[in-house]
Amino acid sequence: MAEAVEVSEGRGVMHLFWRVRSPEGAAEAIARFASADDQQAVTFSVLGGRADAGLMALSPDLDALDRLAKDLHGRGLDPVSSFISLTELSEYTATEDDERARLVAEGDDDVDSKLAAWNARIAGYRQNRLYPTLPDKRLIAFYPMSKTREPGANWYSLSFEERKALMLGHGRVGRKYAGRIIQLITGATGLDDWEWGVTLFADDPVAIKDIVYEMRFDPVSAEYGVFGPFWTGLLLPPDEVFSRAGA
Amino acid sequence: MAEAVEVSEGRGVMHLFWRVRSPEGAAEAIARFASADDQQAVTFSVLGGRADAGLMALSPDLDALDRLAKDLHGRGLDPVSSFISLTELSEYTATEDDERARLVAEGDDDVDSKLAAWNARIAGYRQNRLYPTLPDKRLIAFYPMSKTREPGANWYSLSFEERKALMLGHGRVGRKYAGRIIQLITGATGLDDWEWGVTLFADDPVAIKDIVYEMRFDPVSAEYGVFGPFWTGLLLPPDEVFSRAGA
Amino acid sequence: MAEAVEVSEGRGVMHLFWRVRSPEGAAEAIARFASADDQQAVTFSVLGGRADAGLMALSPDLDALDRLAKDLHGRGLDPVSSFISLTELSEYTATEDDERARLVAEGDDDVDSKLAAWNARIAGYRQNRLYPTLPDKRLIAFYPMSKTREPGANWYSLSFEERKALMLGHGRVGRKYAGRIIQLITGATGLDDWEWGVTLFADDPVAIKDIVYEMRFDPVSAEYGVFGPFWTGLLLPPDEVFSRAGA
Amino acid sequence: MAEAVEVSEGRGVMHLFWRVRSPEGAAEAIARFASADDQQAVTFSVLGGRADAGLMALSPDLDALDRLAKDLHGRGLDPVSSFISLTELSEYTATEDDERARLVAEGDDDVDSKLAAWNARIAGYRQNRLYPTLPDKRLIAFYPMSKTREPGANWYSLSFEERKALMLGHGRVGRKYAGRIIQLITGATGLDDWEWGVTLFADDPVAIKDIVYEMRFDPVSAEYGVFGPFWTGLLLPPDEVFSRAGA
Amino acid sequence: MAEAVEVSEGRGVMHLFWRVRSPEGAAEAIARFASADDQQAVTFSVLGGRADAGLMALSPDLDALDRLAKDLHGRGLDPVSSFISLTELSEYTATEDDERARLVAEGDDDVDSKLAAWNARIAGYRQNRLYPTLPDKRLIAFYPMSKTREPGANWYSLSFEERKALMLGHGRVGRKYAGRIIQLITGATGLDDWEWGVTLFADDPVAIKDIVYEMRFDPVSAEYGVFGPFWTGLLLPPDEVFSRAGA
Repeated sequence: MAEAVEVSEGRGVMHLFWRVRSPEGAAEAIARFASADDQQAVTFSVLGGRADAGLMALSPDLDALDRLAKDLHGRGLDPVSSFISLTELSEYTATEDDERARLVAEGDDDVDSKLAAWNARIAGYRQNRLYPTLPDKRLIAFYPMSKTREPGANWYSLSFEERKALMLGHGRVGRKYAGRIIQLITGATGLDDWEWGVTLFADDPVAIKDIVYEMRFDPVSAEYGVFGPFWTGLLLPPDEVFSRAGA
Repeated sequence: MAEAVEVSEGRGVMHLFWRVRSPEGAAEAIARFASADDQQAVTFSVLGGRADAGLMALSPDLDALDRLAKDLHGRGLDPVSSFISLTELSEYTATEDDERARLVAEGDDDVDSKLAAWNARIAGYRQNRLYPTLPDKRLIAFYPMSKTREPGANWYSLSFEERKALMLGHGRVGRKYAGRIIQLITGATGLDDWEWGVTLFADDPVAIKDIVYEMRFDPVSAEYGVFGPFWTGLLLPPDEVFSRAGA
Repeated sequence: MAEAVEVSEGRGVMHLFWRVRSPEGAAEAIARFASADDQQAVTFSVLGGRADAGLMALSPDLDALDRLAKDLHGRGLDPVSSFISLTELSEYTATEDDERARLVAEGDDDVDSKLAAWNARIAGYRQNRLYPTLPDKRLIAFYPMSKTREPGANWYSLSFEERKALMLGHGRVGRKYAGRIIQLITGATGLDDWEWGVTLFADDPVAIKDIVYEMRFDPVSAEYGVFGPFWTGLLLPPDEVFSRAGA
Repeated sequence: MAEAVEVSEGRGVMHLFWRVRSPEGAAEAIARFASADDQQAVTFSVLGGRADAGLMALSPDLDALDRLAKDLHGRGLDPVSSFISLTELSEYTATEDDERARLVAEGDDDVDSKLAAWNARIAGYRQNRLYPTLPDKRLIAFYPMSKTREPGANWYSLSFEERKALMLGHGRVGRKYAGRIIQLITGATGLDDWEWGVTLFADDPVAIKDIVYEMRFDPVSAEYGVFGPFWTGLLLPPDEVFSRAGA
Repeated sequence: MAEAVEVSEGRGVMHLFWRVRSPEGAAEAIARFASADDQQAVTFSVLGGRADAGLMALSPDLDALDRLAKDLHGRGLDPVSSFISLTELSEYTATEDDERARLVAEGDDDVDSKLAAWNARIAGYRQNRLYPTLPDKRLIAFYPMSKTREPGANWYSLSFEERKALMLGHGRVGRKYAGRIIQLITGATGLDDWEWGVTLFADDPVAIKDIVYEMRFDPVSAEYGVFGPFWTGLLLPPDEVFSRAGA
């Protein structure tokens, strides 16, 4: 038996997109995978013609993700595309020092207790980025992205402070869609062709279009974002995804 | 049964392009789809060799669009390409304030009643963009497009006023072709690989070539337009499209 | 029966490139098409491995072109690539005023009769661009092209006068090859992925290489030309093209 | 029998990525290859859907590598991608003169014996780059890369000294990951589409992501690096790789 | 019978790359082709997975090249890629005037007889470029290339003198590898997607890597070269190439 290939922090994340031929036992294989501790999987019917069905799966063990992929492949799900990434913290989130400075600057007279609450909130936020629980929504949208490295627009030549300032504005747009959009950003540098994967969950397709469109005007995207293919799918139980695919 | 995945405003739009193998019952499936309230579909024989046949379908429900796509796929229509978008209003159309200022500047002595007529006309125009009725023409042309985001030509770094001024000139070219060309622009940011889809309907192929060529000199296209593949098709009833495809 | 989809001026042009499986009756179908009034077709064996055989067909009716394409497709000719365009006049050719000014500047004492001759010659030239007769040569070369729209080299941001001046130089190179090369430029903006198609006919492959190489130094190509795939073929009767393809 | 095609210095390196159909005897063929003197091979299960399995093989003889590739191809391993390169020394490593100058500048009073030790260490390092022993790890990551040659960022227009200075900074990042990451850079200019291949070995996927991400901020990568597809795999014995692939 | 399509000067050159299924009689067909006057062919086993086997064939007659290609295609060799070009002289080689000036500048007192010897040598060189004899080596490397036409690096906007000066430096690097590398440059502008094809013959793979790497620092390549896919193969007799491919 193969041993686990463990991710030292966070989760391994696998997005798969298939043509569906004859998914004998595929729904059961996905259910088995998702029943293990610390493992999750959602399936979706891919809109448009580039693929029939898709999967997003999380595990602390890359070997478990690979065995699932190969098992499904052997059951008549032909790979069309995929993305391999890891959950990760953002390096640009505010620090405790940032927050204390902000509170002091506001003349807050209860800095310490507010800071304690902030720390608890941030700890929950970080836990959720590294060990997320996939939400129950009707729609999933996924796209990979990188930052530009060209003369005149080179993200990787900016200082940390410049990048952090740019990312804060980006975060503000994201927070406007709280409740309508749940977003998970995972890191793929060195593991897949793009540097990050962005997965959005929503019930209303207009919300997906609106948030990505609005973010495009933010300098982080306008000047430094390069986007890969966009996949949109209807989240449905595996058996419905596969039967709908005509198999 | 799957529940509807509703578009909160406007319509979901699905363009599909296929190789045709053996379209058993495909024409009937399309007719059934198009018979539902608020749903429309037109089919076309694709010119050239990239695909045999194509479909443009509208629905308030993405789930209904997906079920149609998967049903046709299972009936011997193999997907070659596709585009998923939503109808949307233009953010750059003149406002009531713009129009009042224009009338006042012209020294018009009947601003109020003219403004009322203008409002009615605009309301119809907006209704038509969000809830269009596909016209009865001989030709369809479709292409996806995005706006550039490169050093020296970054649409998303322009101010709203700059973009609005540029779009007004663009609209003037469009209006020259009123009657010869019917144009529908739908939004796809976050949903598909390009930011917009442009669908043109016409009877004369020269009109399609002329409008797209003339618009290319407009700064909006000349400097900021990036265009994807261009598809041209002959609009025909589904059974003729499929029988012509040799199936 | 489908009705004609007529081109209001000029001819519809279809380039097709195929893998050949079992072209049952394909040569006859092409002959039937070419026997109709105002319709022409030439076939060629494609050099290299990207396709086996190709067709260039002209008709005033896009529907007739589409029926031919689908008919051949159903006869074991699998599409590899294609190009859809329309014959068109150049917008940059000299006007009667240009020619009169030129004659006057040369001190010509017989401007009127020379202008009449010029007008007749130009009328023939225009007729030939819109309604060409495909020549009888041994070789065909085809490539699609567009003009650049990038910061620093944007054809569509130049004035008409600048573009006309640049095109005149381009024409001079073309005329040096009169007799050795017959060239047909057709327009595809809005209809296919590139803005123009260039079709060259010659007997000597060196002439094709020389004219395209020499033109590349002309600023129109050097700075503003973007070129798609180049296809070269041996013009042969349909039955020889198909039997050579091993079918 | 074909004679050897020998690499005059270093080793020939072949990366292969396959779809696996029915690998009859493939594991045995790989074992036979790897049992020969100076030959090595490792196999891996490819993460994601772009390929099922992969191989990295080294030999002093390109003919032996080619016979292995063709033998495996004939055994039901269908090629998806590949990379051909040679091991090579870096031209930018410090010279004895560099090291002596450094020691003298530090005021070292035992330059000669330290230089002798340095020479021994460098000799081992060079031997290892030209004649590496593939390590025993759980993960392999491979990506090809080139250096930019564009206006404003042209690596090949820099002087040797400028390039050497840039590469030294790059090396410093690499050394931070000593123990967690083993890296092998091989040269492919003139042999394959990219100029170099980078192969990383690790046990923790986070280490792969971290080193490639951190290096991206180094000017060598930020300004001059162009990266091809990234492949990640789980290193496993051939029989396990092939049985997992469902064959 | 088809008549010859003759190249008025030089030879037609066809590079073909195949997947090999069942090459019944392919080796014999190649031998027959190569037995004709003025025709040559070499075959090779392609390194890596992009193709199984390749051919480089020369003929004064494009029709003969096409008949060979189609014949082999019908014998179970499926085309993967190809390149069509013509042998040609370099336009940048030194003229007799250049050489006389050089000799005079050197104060040579025997200019006339040295010029005669130079003329004889150059005549042989030119004959060899137009009508080459393919050498007997172990390795072949092929890549297509073009010159850049972008703002800031436009080869075709340079004067002839600037281009000639740049090419002379390029030639000096080439001469350093005399004996280790035999190079043939053929022209493809207007005939194939790239402007030139470069074919290298060598016994040592390190020599191929070294010459292409060293040339990349030459401004002609560093600033103006755009390179297509690189193919490397082991030169072997046709029957060995095909049997090795597992067919």
